[in-house]
Amino acid sequence: MKTVGELGEDGLIAQLCGGLSVSGKVVVGPGDDCAVVGEGDLLTLLKADAVVAGVHFLAGEDPRRVGWKAVARVLSDFAAMGGTPGELLVTIALENKTPVDWVIRLYEGMTKCLDQHGGVIVGGETTSLPEGAPAMISVAGRGTVKSSEVVTRSGGRPGDAIYVTGTLGGSIRGKHLDFTPRLEEANWLTRHFKINAMMDLSDGLAKDLPRLARMSGCGFEIDRETLPLSEGISVEEALGDGEDYELLFTSGDEIEGTWGTTFPDLRLTRVGQLILGKGSPLEGGWDHFKR
Amino acid sequence: MKTVGELGEDGLIAQLCGGLSVSGKVVVGPGDDCAVVGEGDLLTLLKADAVVAGVHFLAGEDPRRVGWKAVARVLSDFAAMGGTPGELLVTIALENKTPVDWVIRLYEGMTKCLDQHGGVIVGGETTSLPEGAPAMISVAGRGTVKSSEVVTRSGGRPGDAIYVTGTLGGSIRGKHLDFTPRLEEANWLTRHFKINAMMDLSDGLAKDLPRLARMSGCGFEIDRETLPLSEGISVEEALGDGEDYELLFTSGDEIEGTWGTTFPDLRLTRVGQLILGKGSPLEGGWDHFKR
Repeated sequence: MKTVGELGEDGLIAQLCGGLSVSGKVVVGPGDDCAVVGEGDLLTLLKADAVVAGVHFLAGEDPRRVGWKAVARVLSDFAAMGGTPGELLVTIALENKTPVDWVIRLYEGMTKCLDQHGGVIVGGETTSLPEGAPAMISVAGRGTVKSSEVVTRSGGRPGDAIYVTGTLGGSIRGKHLDFTPRLEEANWLTRHFKINAMMDLSDGLAKDLPRLARMSGCGFEIDRETLPLSEGISVEEALGDGEDYELLFTSGDEIEGTWGTTFPDLRLTRVGQLILGKGSPLEGGWDHFKR
Repeated sequence: MKTVGELGEDGLIAQLCGGLSVSGKVVVGPGDDCAVVGEGDLLTLLKADAVVAGVHFLAGEDPRRVGWKAVARVLSDFAAMGGTPGELLVTIALENKTPVDWVIRLYEGMTKCLDQHGGVIVGGETTSLPEGAPAMISVAGRGTVKSSEVVTRSGGRPGDAIYVTGTLGGSIRGKHLDFTPRLEEANWLTRHFKINAMMDLSDGLAKDLPRLARMSGCGFEIDRETLPLSEGISVEEALGDGEDYELLFTSGDEIEGTWGTTFPDLRLTRVGQLILGKGSPLEGGWDHFKR
C-alpha cells in the first residue's frame, strides 16, 4: 500500500482534489496559494496553514519568531494572490507542560507581524497534545482582493518574463523565521502592471516554478546564471533550499525600471521566461512528504 | 513557571485574548463558537478547529469517521451561531509512512458530512510530521449568518429558560465520531424564536453552561433530575463526559410544543434557568489542558 511519503505532496493533493465538488461561488479552488470565493468587486481569500515543531521550527526556537513565521506564511499567501490580510484564527496544539510564557511570546510574535503588515486575530482554538508530540500552530483566515487585481498561478502565458523578488537560498540561516511577507510589493505590482501569474516561493524555485508553469499550461526556461543568490549560496541551493517566501511572478510588461525606483532596497530579477510546451525540468526543491 | 496545564484552557484563552486588538469590522471576537465579521444583512462566520490522534480519536479509528468528526465539529460551531456552512480549508499533518488510502478515506468522511449538511472544501495544506507524532487534521473556514439571526454566548438574560437538545453523556461510545451537527435545528430556532444565547456542547454541560452564563453576565440554576441522560449514563457523566455536540441555548420563549411537532425524533429538554448573580457551580467537564 502506497504511503504519502512515496506519493509526495503534489501527487497527494492532486488525488484529493479530484474528489472535491466545486460550487458556483468558488472562483479559485484547491491548488493555488489561496482559495478565492465570493462575487462582485471585492472577493474573499481563504487560507489555512500550519507550522510544526521539528519541521518548520526547532523546538528550542524563540516563540516570538515562531509566531511571526506562522502568521507571515499566511500573509505571504495573501500577497501572492494580490490581496490584503483580514481576520485570522489561530489553533494551537501543545503539550500540557508547555510554559504559559511560551504561548504569550508566541502571540507577541504573531501580533507584531500583524501590526506591521495588516490583519487581526479574531479567535481560534486550543487543544492538548499527547506527551512528546511536537507543538503545532495553525493559522487560518480570510483576506480580500479586488476582482480586478486577483492573480492566480494559472494565468501565465508563453513569452511572459519570469521574475523573482529578493534573493534565493540559505533561508535556514534565519530568514525562514523572520521574512517579510511581500504584501506591499505584490499590491503595487497588481495595481500598476498586468501580472499574469504569481505565487510565493515556499518550496524552492525548482519545485515552485514547475507548479506555476504547469498550472499555466506552459513550459519555462530559466537562465541559471541570472539567479539572485543569497550570500554564499550556490545555484543548486538557491533552486532547492526553499522557504524563501519571495514572490515568483510572470508578466509581459517591462517592470524592472519602475521597480528599482519604488523598491530600491529589494532586488527584482528576471530569471527566465514561460514558453510553449513543457520546457526543461528542474532538479531539487522541498517536498513535504518525500524526505 | 506556570504551564498551560496548570492554567487551564479558559485561563489561557483569557490571557491571550487580552492582548488582541479588535478592529471595526469584527462583530464578535475571540471567545464565542465562531468569530463574526463583516457588516450588512449577511455576516461572515470564521472558525478553525483541529482533531489530534490520541486526543480526539484513536490512532486505529476508521479514517472516514475521523474525517466526519473533523468537519462536523466546525459545522456544529456554525450551527451554534445560527449560521450556515460555506467554504472550508483542510490542513492535514501526517507522518510520511501514512498510507495514501488512509487520507483518501479521511476525505470521504469529510465530504460525506458536507454533502449531507452543507459546505464545500476549497483548499488546504499538507505537512509532514516527525516520526511518531500524532496525526492532526485542522478544518477552518467561513460560514454565513443573517445579521438578524446571529446568536452569541453573551445574550442570555436572567429568567431565560436553559434548553439542551438530544441526550447528554456517553459520547465516547461512538457519538463523538458520528454526531449530527444541529444545523437544521439551530436555523429553525433562530428563524422562529428569540434565542438569546447559544453554544454547542463540546466540553460537557458542567464546563460549557458556566461559560455561557459568565459571558451573559448571569448565574444559572439547573435541575439535575431533568437532565436528558443518554442510556446507562449517570447525572455526573452527563454533566462531565463532553463531546455531546448538542445545542445549549437560552430563551424567554415557549419552544417545547412547536419543537415536538417539528423534530419528533430529537428531544428538547428545559434543564434550568439563567438567574441574576453567580448561581451554583458545577463540578466536572473537560479541560483541554488540565488533564
